[in-house]
Amino acid sequence: MTDVADVSAAAELVVPSVDVEPGSQPVGWRHRHLLDVDGLSATDLDLVMRTADAMREVLDRPIAKVPALRGSNVTILFYEASTRTRVSFEVAAKNLSADVVNIAAATSSVTKGESLVDTIRTVEALGARMLVMRHSVSGAPYLAAEVFGGSVLNGGDGWHAHPTQALLDLYTMRQRLPGGSVEGRKVVILGDCLHSRVARSNLWSLTASGADVWLCGPSTLLRGFEAWAARGAASGRRFHVTSSVDDALRDADVVMALRIQRERMASGLLPSLREYAARFGLTRERLALARPDAIVMHPGPMNEGVEIAPDVAVSAQSSITDQVTNGVAIRMALLYLLAGVRDGG
Amino acid sequence: MTDVADVSAAAELVVPSVDVEPGSQPVGWRHRHLLDVDGLSATDLDLVMRTADAMREVLDRPIAKVPALRGSNVTILFYEASTRTRVSFEVAAKNLSADVVNIAAATSSVTKGESLVDTIRTVEALGARMLVMRHSVSGAPYLAAEVFGGSVLNGGDGWHAHPTQALLDLYTMRQRLPGGSVEGRKVVILGDCLHSRVARSNLWSLTASGADVWLCGPSTLLRGFEAWAARGAASGRRFHVTSSVDDALRDADVVMALRIQRERMASGLLPSLREYAARFGLTRERLALARPDAIVMHPGPMNEGVEIAPDVAVSAQSSITDQVTNGVAIRMALLYLLAGVRDGG
Amino acid sequence: MTDVADVSAAAELVVPSVDVEPGSQPVGWRHRHLLDVDGLSATDLDLVMRTADAMREVLDRPIAKVPALRGSNVTILFYEASTRTRVSFEVAAKNLSADVVNIAAATSSVTKGESLVDTIRTVEALGARMLVMRHSVSGAPYLAAEVFGGSVLNGGDGWHAHPTQALLDLYTMRQRLPGGSVEGRKVVILGDCLHSRVARSNLWSLTASGADVWLCGPSTLLRGFEAWAARGAASGRRFHVTSSVDDALRDADVVMALRIQRERMASGLLPSLREYAARFGLTRERLALARPDAIVMHPGPMNEGVEIAPDVAVSAQSSITDQVTNGVAIRMALLYLLAGVRDGG
Repeated sequence: MTDVADVSAAAELVVPSVDVEPGSQPVGWRHRHLLDVDGLSATDLDLVMRTADAMREVLDRPIAKVPALRGSNVTILFYEASTRTRVSFEVAAKNLSADVVNIAAATSSVTKGESLVDTIRTVEALGARMLVMRHSVSGAPYLAAEVFGGSVLNGGDGWHAHPTQALLDLYTMRQRLPGGSVEGRKVVILGDCLHSRVARSNLWSLTASGADVWLCGPSTLLRGFEAWAARGAASGRRFHVTSSVDDALRDADVVMALRIQRERMASGLLPSLREYAARFGLTRERLALARPDAIVMHPGPMNEGVEIAPDVAVSAQSSITDQVTNGVAIRMALLYLLAGVRDGG
Repeated sequence: MTDVADVSAAAELVVPSVDVEPGSQPVGWRHRHLLDVDGLSATDLDLVMRTADAMREVLDRPIAKVPALRGSNVTILFYEASTRTRVSFEVAAKNLSADVVNIAAATSSVTKGESLVDTIRTVEALGARMLVMRHSVSGAPYLAAEVFGGSVLNGGDGWHAHPTQALLDLYTMRQRLPGGSVEGRKVVILGDCLHSRVARSNLWSLTASGADVWLCGPSTLLRGFEAWAARGAASGRRFHVTSSVDDALRDADVVMALRIQRERMASGLLPSLREYAARFGLTRERLALARPDAIVMHPGPMNEGVEIAPDVAVSAQSSITDQVTNGVAIRMALLYLLAGVRDGG
Repeated sequence: MTDVADVSAAAELVVPSVDVEPGSQPVGWRHRHLLDVDGLSATDLDLVMRTADAMREVLDRPIAKVPALRGSNVTILFYEASTRTRVSFEVAAKNLSADVVNIAAATSSVTKGESLVDTIRTVEALGARMLVMRHSVSGAPYLAAEVFGGSVLNGGDGWHAHPTQALLDLYTMRQRLPGGSVEGRKVVILGDCLHSRVARSNLWSLTASGADVWLCGPSTLLRGFEAWAARGAASGRRFHVTSSVDDALRDADVVMALRIQRERMASGLLPSLREYAARFGLTRERLALARPDAIVMHPGPMNEGVEIAPDVAVSAQSSITDQVTNGVAIRMALLYLLAGVRDGG
């Protein structure tokens, strides 16, 4: 557990006055990289959440800017197209007064046959101190972390992990749930779990935080999770897998719909979009099975009318735009925490 | 009419000393968005022009930067390729010390099927306080303004409107015309008016300012404007439509050539480029019909040798590069004015 | 020769305290543009190197930022894809506190048929004070320099020149060679010299600095250099051309492998990649012919296993990542030196 002194020290550091020397170190954080959530203890998760609270406070100021990373180079190297994650990291870094370099790898010389390791070494030699990276190959950020001298933040790798998404989701649940905790809460992740790095990272952080997680979707898109669930149960994690939407949604506290990738149609794993929407789409009728104040979430971008009905997406229960804003706060918190480790040693 | 006190207050505010608190409010401006020029009164136009004067003065400084929007997030969301308008807004925002986020929608996840409304909500949740938007669909910025909590600036929508272009054109004319006013001046817009948002926005602001506007081009590319002209005349606006270049150019004070979009050829609305250049191209010979000191304008990018002859484009009468620089000043003025309204309420 | 007073004045100016007025002028630099290295005297080269020393010192600071170009607009206009050169200039400019505008010409309106001259005029009117430009046509930056009112920096034009690469290479050699000079040193450039702007610019600056330069590669890719060598020898420059790797590498002090462009295969000028690697690839065995402490260089991006073996690329003799970091320092130095000339007149 983080004691109160640690947390208030962190809060003090992340909301520095304009005169505070950049490079000050948060107390109690030990990780140089953020590759997935599976290495984060409950104490770590708590420190991220509390640091994000301080960053949310910064975001509410007329000038949402602190000097914590002034003059530090944050390079955003994305091998897959993205708007919200890329911009979220960019805004987070700029709010901390960092200098941001964007590299869209698809249109850069990394397509000229250069190896990933060479690209990472080059980016570091160009001055990057923090590297935010998205790659279509699972595990690519781990390789990057082996050669990069600063901090690597995984912005999504293949089907594997999307740790900042899981952290912003956890933050959003804690913000909205009565009592501020996911402990014992029924959280449903609804959709194509098989191909979802969002599902995989959330599964870890939510079960680690004591939530009762239900994965729900077409059985073809839940393959492999049954075995995980059995292992998870053995180690005290609460985790269910079902293709019954009714079972999943009944009395749920949180329902997170996942984006359906249209390109999965071709693989035969998914019925038509129309059929998917009819069987698994999050409609007002289905949501009525959940608790009256259940929170609706979606990592975006949405296919409205497919995995989520338009009226559900904008209802009072929806926290979808909160997720986006919280994503900026979470990424500010992580950049701040990781930078402290690097600067300190 | 803007009274003198208002204007000097505005001028004072837009050229703040380094110590001025960002968020200071200009006096007399009421619009939160800039969607088109048709909602701007003569007083509004005057305030924009005078604020732009102050911004031109900033541009002439060794360090062309004021802190007015420090820490404010200006997001530039362009659904169509652009260099000059996009960069002009970016430079304007940076000159005001804003943080700028560029989103080229064609290469972002907005192509993944996300609705425009969701994209706008997301951009706002990511921190955008001002949204500069270009879209191929007429009216798209109006939809954006309905859901966006900050200020929307239309950077061009379909054939409909390009208000910052019209304002920079008006500013450039006032700067160059003897007496500093377009009142009673003969202004010719020459080319493909049918598909031109530049023509539509200019038509409004110029007739509102008392200019005598002549649209000239192939009759297929003037369709619909005859009816406008009749309505305009009924309300006291001076507005003519003709396919006779000689009639249009005779004694003109300003001649603005429009860019010919090569892709219009396919539609059959336009003859060949060669034929167009022969009949409607702005050559030195044709320009001789206008007043000796007539101003030559073009919104860019030019097809030299088609709608405008190369020697005319670089002649002493040309104000084409002035238009570009004035565009930065106008956009600084608008960002500044709109930000004041948002901050104030 | 630069006298000591000049150099220490330059060093003092490039490492200004936070209070130093931007726009201060380095002593002894006369060039407004950097188009190629062939216009630089030995004194100029020396001033660039010593200014880069000061910039390297800035790069080692916790906050690698000086205010020298605060508020100045550096526009990076690239007509060819690039990561390292583009980012290197961007980081260099930001380290000097400039505002950076990126224009990737392939995706901008410069593809709409606008002439290069119009684009340059527009970029200047938008506020650019320094223009970094890469273009596939040899000589394009010279045309730009004729119309641009600020400073043009050539970031690579066709096969012609890549002056900042040559300067960072020279800097890296001086940094690593005993005695800090290339004078009398045997420097081998190995690969496709014919299509290489890197080879052409290096050839000039290295022979001007007294190095003994050997170009080595398949004879089809050395065409024309024999004649240069003869002319060079007549004017006292030391310069050899050979297809014998053994002759070239024997007792070399520096070996620079050039990137093989895969697209050259189609032209029939190059054997297969496998055959090229077997005959000309820089392997550990071949490198053993050179002096034991010979420096290995490569402008990147590398085709590992083709022109250079992976173990050679990461050996203790390799200075490839040093080249990248030195590239930032060299570009900071050049932006600083050129800005002083512009500001001064």
